[in-house]
Amino acid sequence: MPDPIVFSGGNDGAWRVTRQTAIKGNGVAGVDRLTKGGQPIAGATWVLSGVPSNLRYTNAAEKRVLDATPSVLGRPAATRAALIPIAKSAAWWALAQDERRVVLEDKSRHIAIGSDYLSAVSRQLVHCRDQPGAVFDFLTWFEFPPADEGRFDELLAKLRATPEWGFVEREVELRLEKVS
Amino acid sequence: MPDPIVFSGGNDGAWRVTRQTAIKGNGVAGVDRLTKGGQPIAGATWVLSGVPSNLRYTNAAEKRVLDATPSVLGRPAATRAALIPIAKSAAWWALAQDERRVVLEDKSRHIAIGSDYLSAVSRQLVHCRDQPGAVFDFLTWFEFPPADEGRFDELLAKLRATPEWGFVEREVELRLEKVS
Repeated sequence: MPDPIVFSGGNDGAWRVTRQTAIKGNGVAGVDRLTKGGQPIAGATWVLSGVPSNLRYTNAAEKRVLDATPSVLGRPAATRAALIPIAKSAAWWALAQDERRVVLEDKSRHIAIGSDYLSAVSRQLVHCRDQPGAVFDFLTWFEFPPADEGRFDELLAKLRATPEWGFVEREVELRLEKVS
Repeated sequence: MPDPIVFSGGNDGAWRVTRQTAIKGNGVAGVDRLTKGGQPIAGATWVLSGVPSNLRYTNAAEKRVLDATPSVLGRPAATRAALIPIAKSAAWWALAQDERRVVLEDKSRHIAIGSDYLSAVSRQLVHCRDQPGAVFDFLTWFEFPPADEGRFDELLAKLRATPEWGFVEREVELRLEKVS
């Protein structure tokens, strides 16, 4: 079984928080630095963790595109990042699988939109919904070179304008730059 | 977020273990009694836990059938039960969503077969795959009256004969009777 992916927010860490925004619903306590990976940092202001998991909506044809453009984390040039924890509504989770797929892809083009940015933006989807006590469903993580921050902004704007985002009831955004 | 569902196996509990079988792969330590629910029992031989979660494969039409026959746990007549923890293979989890659906329903009729037994067999699907350290993907729980044990055996036999079960790499079965 995969190891948990841990995000510790506080005064220490290789990522400096340049902007922290409560996009929807409650934010999280303000922090200066973020550590990604390893064990929870003692004395952290908050710790969010989850696990990588299987694909939930991606079909075989879409998976071939993803597999052909693997997301490489830790690229030396990717000195900007974003952590965006998200919780969707009870109404979303009460939908049947095919109904969620219709909203996510047929109506919102989530996978198609994301595919357009694979080469610029590395991403990792961390699942925490099925962990007792979790307050978010997903912790989404993105890394990109400074020159691609505009592309990343564009990706976020497109996704947030979709019908799928109508089901997002809590979303927090931390923008980060690498300091070590 | 839903509370965890905890199964504690040991010397105490309202369910007596009448048979414990390693169907595939390693079993779990033999126990006499099982407690379902509440906090982990101190001194238990083992504790397995997970959470209820959203539907993963069921489409809207199939969900209408499920919703029309809700699974009621704790029926007084349902004095027999089974706990069947299951882990599927890495090959299963590496499939795209549509590929898993094809195996699960188009080829294996998992949802259709299950629907035939809804009135006799109450069931609860507990997810643990996305919890760090989990050794099973699911903890499946079934309750039925003694007179319906044959129907339950039939359900298990049908499911285990499906292509989907070729992806099950660990399966343990505990048969139980209520003692209090």
